[in-house]
Amino acid sequence: MTGADLRATPGLARRPGPVARRSVVDVVDGTATARPDTLVSEEPLEIRLAWPGHPATRVAVTMRTPGADFELAAGYLLAEGAARIAEPPRSVAYCVDRALSQEQQFNVVTVELDAPPPRQPSGRATTMSSACGVCGTESLAEVFTPDSVPIGVDAMVDSAVIVGLPDALRDKQPLFSRTGAIHASGLFDYHGRLIVTREDIGRHNTVDKVLGARQLGSVAYGEESILCVSGRIGFDIVTKAVAGRISVVVAVGGPSSLAVELADRAGITVCGFTRGQRYVVYTHPERLSGV
Amino acid sequence: MTGADLRATPGLARRPGPVARRSVVDVVDGTATARPDTLVSEEPLEIRLAWPGHPATRVAVTMRTPGADFELAAGYLLAEGAARIAEPPRSVAYCVDRALSQEQQFNVVTVELDAPPPRQPSGRATTMSSACGVCGTESLAEVFTPDSVPIGVDAMVDSAVIVGLPDALRDKQPLFSRTGAIHASGLFDYHGRLIVTREDIGRHNTVDKVLGARQLGSVAYGEESILCVSGRIGFDIVTKAVAGRISVVVAVGGPSSLAVELADRAGITVCGFTRGQRYVVYTHPERLSGV
Repeated sequence: MTGADLRATPGLARRPGPVARRSVVDVVDGTATARPDTLVSEEPLEIRLAWPGHPATRVAVTMRTPGADFELAAGYLLAEGAARIAEPPRSVAYCVDRALSQEQQFNVVTVELDAPPPRQPSGRATTMSSACGVCGTESLAEVFTPDSVPIGVDAMVDSAVIVGLPDALRDKQPLFSRTGAIHASGLFDYHGRLIVTREDIGRHNTVDKVLGARQLGSVAYGEESILCVSGRIGFDIVTKAVAGRISVVVAVGGPSSLAVELADRAGITVCGFTRGQRYVVYTHPERLSGV
Repeated sequence: MTGADLRATPGLARRPGPVARRSVVDVVDGTATARPDTLVSEEPLEIRLAWPGHPATRVAVTMRTPGADFELAAGYLLAEGAARIAEPPRSVAYCVDRALSQEQQFNVVTVELDAPPPRQPSGRATTMSSACGVCGTESLAEVFTPDSVPIGVDAMVDSAVIVGLPDALRDKQPLFSRTGAIHASGLFDYHGRLIVTREDIGRHNTVDKVLGARQLGSVAYGEESILCVSGRIGFDIVTKAVAGRISVVVAVGGPSSLAVELADRAGITVCGFTRGQRYVVYTHPERLSGV
């Protein structure tokens, strides 16, 4: 195969859109055909945090798919314990720092709170603060503190709702339809009705965007909610469900041991390998009816 | 469903093994059956870096599946630009800090170099150093510096080799067979012969472990190598291929726009959506023969 087709392709436009166009080569049974393609975009997002008397300071940079950037920032801060649930920030805005080029300005979001954050973001879902030890037990303790109250929902979810969620989520993935390479999270009520769905190349970002949608008042939901994710259930995903006080997590993939331990402690029902009419329940099956 | 079965399950043993046992409930067509299950483990790993005159200092904490911890640490440092390729560190060891419990000691790895690192680790694959701007262009520049030489392999890979790699990788995933929920990376030569494969719950960790296997001298390989990953090809994955000077990256999933741009610049061939006898070439198709 010669590289003529791809080398002739002009560089991707540097605007922060969710997708980018590029010429690619399909190979099918050893035969190559050039065609235009749509790729999912990936760009860094810097999140800055400010409050009265405290200037905006970088707290995180994450690679993400542009779109719902304000929600991503607000949800990230909730998941990190740096914001209180359903308390909207004073403001969320792209940076207007003159030192940044126009392109960079769309990759910097400043969240301003009305008061100092409950705690500083430390990336606890994937890393740990320097104050604590380094083991699974400590990781759990940092997310689910002694003051945390386990989620205790009395309502039941019908098992038939669980098995329908992955398909319902897939039906609401416009970027997946276009690129075939993006994760999604959807929030549903106990009757399986869709509340909000968000896409991103980063699994964890999809959940931050869902949490952020409530933080910014775009949608409302309580503990009787089900988070359905397109990937696997790592510790980071359950950490965010704990922060968002979402009582059920469903995935097509499986969970890790630490994710299951955290969900067990936090009162969250975890269902994995949800495929067709089958799934596996890892924690709190008492919330499920019809089985 | 009642929670009796799961509530009766004793807590997971807290040893740093790659899997953990737990009682789960299978639901098939609305019928629940309890059974024992094997879950992939997830535990934090703290990486400390030391060199003569410089005491061991934490440079990263990542959630990972225990196993090949030394390789993970060595590969991470290479990918971060904090080590030179195929230059083994002076030593790699679990921490024996008395302040750590025995359990924690297996989650802290200290890498000692013979000389100061070329640069400090900054998590550049997913974040950026404070010195640079925040946009895709800057992200690329940080990984592929003006001094970097694009990979220029004259040898060709037969297209038939590419399509066989995902199955070859799957055949070498013992933890996937047991848990159904773990990523893998495999390194192959241009003839499709397996050099090394590693599993982890984190996509990025699988590549770090592969790079680390060479850093520690367990395996040897040059630029005529193919990295096959079980997931998608994000910017982080190509960043690591650049650091390891691996000339071809193959995946079952698709790449992001920024991953493709970096591969284009670095001289890396990217093949995505490799399924059956089909795949899509995003960069440098001139390296492929037989199409």
